[in-house]
Amino acid sequence: MLRFALEPRSVAVIGASDNPHKVGGWPLLYLRRYGYRGAIYPVNPARASVQGLRAFARVEDLPEAPELAIVAVAGEEAVRAVEACAAKGVRVVLVMASGFGETGPEGLRVQHSLVETARRAGMRLIGPNCQGLANFANGVVANFSTIFHETEARDGPVAIVSQSGANSQAIYTLVRERGLGVRHVHATGNEADVTVSDLAAAVVADPGVRLLLLYLEAIKDPPGLAAAAQAARERDLPIVALKAGRTARGQKAASSHTGALASEDRVVDAFFERHAIWRAEDPHELVSAAALYLSGRRPRGRRLVFISNSGASCVMAADYAERAGLALAEVSEQAKQKMRQVLPPFAGLDNPIDVTGALLGNPKLFSAVLPAVGEDARSDLLVVALPVAGTGYDVPGLAEDLRQFCERYDHAARLRKRVPELREAQIALPQGGGRFLDEAQSLAALARAGLPVVEHRLCRNAAEAAAAARLLGPEIVMKACSPDLPHKSDHGLVCLSVAEPETEFHRQADVARTLGARFEGVIVARKAAKGRELALGARVDPQFGPVVLVGDGGVYLEALKDYRLLVPPFDEEEVADKLRELRIAPLLGAWRGEPARDVQAFAGMARRLGEAITAWGGAVAAVDVNPVMVFETGRGALAVDALIERAV
Amino acid sequence: MLRFALEPRSVAVIGASDNPHKVGGWPLLYLRRYGYRGAIYPVNPARASVQGLRAFARVEDLPEAPELAIVAVAGEEAVRAVEACAAKGVRVVLVMASGFGETGPEGLRVQHSLVETARRAGMRLIGPNCQGLANFANGVVANFSTIFHETEARDGPVAIVSQSGANSQAIYTLVRERGLGVRHVHATGNEADVTVSDLAAAVVADPGVRLLLLYLEAIKDPPGLAAAAQAARERDLPIVALKAGRTARGQKAASSHTGALASEDRVVDAFFERHAIWRAEDPHELVSAAALYLSGRRPRGRRLVFISNSGASCVMAADYAERAGLALAEVSEQAKQKMRQVLPPFAGLDNPIDVTGALLGNPKLFSAVLPAVGEDARSDLLVVALPVAGTGYDVPGLAEDLRQFCERYDHAARLRKRVPELREAQIALPQGGGRFLDEAQSLAALARAGLPVVEHRLCRNAAEAAAAARLLGPEIVMKACSPDLPHKSDHGLVCLSVAEPETEFHRQADVARTLGARFEGVIVARKAAKGRELALGARVDPQFGPVVLVGDGGVYLEALKDYRLLVPPFDEEEVADKLRELRIAPLLGAWRGEPARDVQAFAGMARRLGEAITAWGGAVAAVDVNPVMVFETGRGALAVDALIERAV
Repeated sequence: MLRFALEPRSVAVIGASDNPHKVGGWPLLYLRRYGYRGAIYPVNPARASVQGLRAFARVEDLPEAPELAIVAVAGEEAVRAVEACAAKGVRVVLVMASGFGETGPEGLRVQHSLVETARRAGMRLIGPNCQGLANFANGVVANFSTIFHETEARDGPVAIVSQSGANSQAIYTLVRERGLGVRHVHATGNEADVTVSDLAAAVVADPGVRLLLLYLEAIKDPPGLAAAAQAARERDLPIVALKAGRTARGQKAASSHTGALASEDRVVDAFFERHAIWRAEDPHELVSAAALYLSGRRPRGRRLVFISNSGASCVMAADYAERAGLALAEVSEQAKQKMRQVLPPFAGLDNPIDVTGALLGNPKLFSAVLPAVGEDARSDLLVVALPVAGTGYDVPGLAEDLRQFCERYDHAARLRKRVPELREAQIALPQGGGRFLDEAQSLAALARAGLPVVEHRLCRNAAEAAAAARLLGPEIVMKACSPDLPHKSDHGLVCLSVAEPETEFHRQADVARTLGARFEGVIVARKAAKGRELALGARVDPQFGPVVLVGDGGVYLEALKDYRLLVPPFDEEEVADKLRELRIAPLLGAWRGEPARDVQAFAGMARRLGEAITAWGGAVAAVDVNPVMVFETGRGALAVDALIERAV
Repeated sequence: MLRFALEPRSVAVIGASDNPHKVGGWPLLYLRRYGYRGAIYPVNPARASVQGLRAFARVEDLPEAPELAIVAVAGEEAVRAVEACAAKGVRVVLVMASGFGETGPEGLRVQHSLVETARRAGMRLIGPNCQGLANFANGVVANFSTIFHETEARDGPVAIVSQSGANSQAIYTLVRERGLGVRHVHATGNEADVTVSDLAAAVVADPGVRLLLLYLEAIKDPPGLAAAAQAARERDLPIVALKAGRTARGQKAASSHTGALASEDRVVDAFFERHAIWRAEDPHELVSAAALYLSGRRPRGRRLVFISNSGASCVMAADYAERAGLALAEVSEQAKQKMRQVLPPFAGLDNPIDVTGALLGNPKLFSAVLPAVGEDARSDLLVVALPVAGTGYDVPGLAEDLRQFCERYDHAARLRKRVPELREAQIALPQGGGRFLDEAQSLAALARAGLPVVEHRLCRNAAEAAAAARLLGPEIVMKACSPDLPHKSDHGLVCLSVAEPETEFHRQADVARTLGARFEGVIVARKAAKGRELALGARVDPQFGPVVLVGDGGVYLEALKDYRLLVPPFDEEEVADKLRELRIAPLLGAWRGEPARDVQAFAGMARRLGEAITAWGGAVAAVDVNPVMVFETGRGALAVDALIERAV
C-alpha cells in the first residue's frame, strides 16, 4: 500500500502555492526539480495555474484519483481535504498541517477522526504534523523541508526514516556531508496511522537501499519493526536506530513532543538487540559508520589489529579497544618475523603495531607489513591510523597498498546470526485463583517449564511438615504458602533456621490466619547449598511482549539495577553475554578461593523461562525467581523462590 | 630557564640542511617564514652557506653561544653535538634524533649520558626523539613537523604541550580546523630532562595563552604539573589533558612507546581533579570545548536551559543532560508567563523549551523568549539548538538576539574553587616493629588521627579477656593481635560470635603460636551495631604521593572495584561527591525501610585519614580500614578493622 506513497503515478497538492517557498509551494518545486514523471495536480480554488501547472479548484474536480495527495492546508480545511481525498479514492494522503494530536485532547480528537475517515475509505494517512516524504529514485519529493533546496540531493543507497521532520533533515545533512548519496528521507510526524515501522518496511523492500537509519521517540508498532528488521537481515541490510527518550527526562520531553508512550529503556535495548538493530546515542553516532556499512565489509568477530606510524595513536587505540570490548588480536610469531625484515628494531610488533617514523624513509613498508597481518588468520578488524602523513610521505602509495590489502584479505561476513528459533512449548498453568499463584504452584509451573527447583513438599498439617523435615533435612526452610501473601518475608513467614518443624508450622498457620489470608499449608524445602545468588525474572511488556530479566540476586535488585533484559527467543550464549555485562560479573568467575559459577545452567533456566513466558501467551504477567542459587561449574543452579503473577 | 627555549635570542641548527624538506632543513625554513628575529646559526661542516644563511663548520666556531641549539644529526654525531653545546655554553639543547631511550637499554644508557653532559653544564635538554617546539608569537619554530608547512599557522591563545610529536600535530590540526589561533606547539619526546610539566609551566607564564591542551602518556613530574596547574588557576586559565594509557592494554602500549611507568588510572583521575585539570578521552574531546573555554564564559553551576525549534532536539537534549549529570533548570512561572505571550499554545515551556516551528513565521520570537530565560535566575547554562534554520529563517536576526543575550546575561564565574588548605597535623606513629602495625596499634594510630574506632581492649591473658567481655558485651568480637598476621581471618583468628571469652583467648593464642607468629594478645571489641559497610583506605603512590580510597566495603572491593580515589587535601563535600559516584550510592540514601547513612561522618573520617597519611610523611605505605560501619544519619560511623603498613 505504501508503494502509492513512495512510487505514486500521480500526486495532488492541496493548497498548492504559486510561491515555491511556502509549505504548499515546495512540493511542486521539488517534484519537478527532482524529475518526477507522473501527473501533478495542484489544487487551489483561487488560481487557474500554479507554478505554471494547470490548477484545479477542488479535489472533486481532478480528472483521476491521485495515488498520493499532499494536504498543505491547515485546520478545518485540512479535515475537509482528507474527506475529499477519501471520497475521491486517493490511496495515500499526506497531512503536513500541524495543530492536531500534538496540541492536546481536542486536536487529538480531530486527528482520530482523520484516521477514521481514511480507514473507512481504505486510504493510508501519513502525518499529520509531518514534513513529508522524499524519494530521490523517482523524484517523489513530497516535502516542505528547505534542506533539499539548500543541499544538493544525490540518489544513493541510504534511507532515512524519522518521526521528527527536523531530525530527518539533520541526519540527511550529516550523511550528505560525508559525500554519501541518499535515496529516501521520510518523516512520519504524529504517526496517526503510518508509523516509522511501516515506512521502514517499505524502504527495506527497495533493492537500491543498502543502509537504513531511523529516528524514533516511541516504537509504536514493535511487531512491524521486527518484521522490517527481519526482511532487512535477509537482505544483509543494516539498520541503525536512534531511539531518543532514553532517560526519564528524555521520555518526559518525548511525551510532550509527540505523546510518545514511556517504555523502559532497557527493553528497547533488548528489542533492538533481538532484531539486530544497532542503536546509536546521537545523530553523529547514527551516521558515523555509514560508509563502513555501505562498503559491505562486515567483521567476523571482535579481534582488532591496529597499525600506525604514531606510538601515541597506538596507545590511544589500545585504550579504546579495551573500553569498547574489542580484543587486540595476537600477532603470530610468523607475522612478526615477516615484519622484522622491514621494520626498525624498536618498532612495536605486538599489536598495536607501531611502524614508527620509519614510514617516512620507506614508503613501501606498508606493502610489506600489511600482507603479514592479512595472512595471519587471528584477526577480524584492521584499523590503520596515519596521523602524520604530509610532505615526504607517499600517500597515494599507502592508499594503493591498503586498497590491495582490502581486495586480497576481505573476510566477507553477513549480519549477525539468525534469531534462534522459538521451541514450541505447551506449558499449562494451573487454573483459577487470583492474581498470584501461591509459591507451591509457582514452583510447580517452573518445574513443568523445565527449570530445576529446590526440592520441597507442600505440607497441609504439622505432621506432614515433620515428615518432610525428616526427609529433606537436616537443614530445611519453611515458608507459608498462600496466594494472598506474595511477599511472605514481610510478614515473618519465611523461616531459614527451623528448630522444631511442627511448632513452626503452627506459628506460620496462626500468622496467616491472623492476616486473613488463604492458607494452603507450609512449604518445607531442602536448604540449598551456598552458591552465588542471581535473579531471574520475566514479564510481558505492554509494548514489546515477553521479556526476561537476568541480574544480581537479592534485595538490592531494584536499588542497584544490576540486571539486563532479553527478548525471547534467545539461546544460552546470549544469556552468558548479558551476564558478562553485569557489574557483579567478576564474581561469577573463580575468585579468591571461590569457584567459578555454573553460568551455563543458569543460562539454560533463563532460556526455558523465555520459552515458558512466550508459551503462556499472555496468561502470565510476571515471573519472579529471586534468588536462583548458582553452584560451582558443573553443579547446576536451582530456583529457590518463585512468584508467578497472572495477567488480569 | 625554559625562556631560552621559547624566546631565545639566537638559535643554532646543528646538521642544518639546504633541503628545506629534511629534518635539518625544516627549522631553518620555519624560523624565517614565521618571522624569527634573533640570530640563526646553521652548523654544517660541508657547506659555506645553508638555505642562503652563512653556515659554520662546528659549534665551536659559532661567534656566540646560541641560547637554543637544535640537534638535527643522529647517533654518535648527536652525542658529540650535545657535548659541544655544553662546552659552548648553550642554554637549551633540543635533540630531534631518535634511537635513544625508546630503542632499549643501550639507547637508554646513551640517553642518560646526554642528560649528564647537559646537567654538568647547567644546560636543559629537550628530547631526544623529539619533533620540537613552536612559538608563533616570535617565530621560534624549532620543529621538523611538516604540518606548519601544510596548515597555515596563526598566532592565538591556545597552547599545546604533548609528549608525542605526532599527537601535537593532530591536536594542532583539530584546533586550527576550528578556526582558532595557536601560539605554542611543543613536543617533549623521550623527556630525558624537560617534561610536559616543565613546558606547561613555561607556557602558563605566557600572558597571551588562555587555554592549555596537554597530551601525556606518563606524568613524570606530578609536583611540577601541580605547580603549573596552580599558576594556571590563579590566571583563570583552563588546562585540559589527554592522558593516554588509561587501560591495561593502553599502559602496555605506552610503556613500549615511551617507557612510560604504569600508574593506576584512577589515581590520575584523582590527581587531575585535585588540580582542576579537565581530562579528555580522545583528541576530539580534548579540543571540543576550546572555543567555549576561550570565550571566558564559565558556568556557575550545572543547571541547564535548552531551547530549540525542534521537539526532537529537546528530547535528545533531555537525555543528554541526564546522562551528563546536568540538571535541567526549572523555569519560573513568571518566565513561562512571558513566553506564553509569544509562543503558540502547544509550545513546550517546561525546560527543554520547544519554541516549535513557529520560529519560521515569527523571527523575533527569540528576542522575546531569551530575556525571559535570562532574567530567570535559576539557570547556569544555556544551549540553543536550531537544527532547522534555512530559507525563510532570519538567521542573522537570531544570531543578533543571541549576541545581545550573551552580553546582558553573562554570569561570569572563575575556575573551580581553591584547593582546600591542608590542616597541619603532627600525628606520631609507634616506633619499631616490622612491616605491619598490629591491629591494636593500627586502631590507636587512627584514633590519634581523629577517626572514631570501635571500642576495644587489648587483652594479654584470658582473665583480661573475660573482664573486657563483661565490660563491652553482651555481644563482642575477638581477634588475635599480631604484627605478623595482617590477614587474621585467613587463619580463623576472628571470632564474631564468642560463647566463652577465656576459651576463645586460649584457642587464638594456640593458633598464633602454631603459626610461629608474635602474639600481642587478643583484642576484645564491642560488636558494632548493624550499618552499611564502606571501605576506607590510604596509600602513598610512588608517583603521586598520598591517595585516599573510599568505596563499597567488604571482601569484594578488589573484584568489583566499586571505589573512588582522592588526593589530599580535600574536604567532606568532595568525599560526598565521590560517594555519589559509587555504584552502591543508592544504598547510602533511605531505601525500602533502611535509613539514610551518615555520609558526613564517613566523609570526616576520610578527610582526617587524608591529613594523617600526609602528616606521616612517607613513614606509612598504606592504611586499610575495611569495613567502616556507617550508621544512620546523625549516628556517626566507626572504624571496625584497621591495618597500617609501614613504608620499608
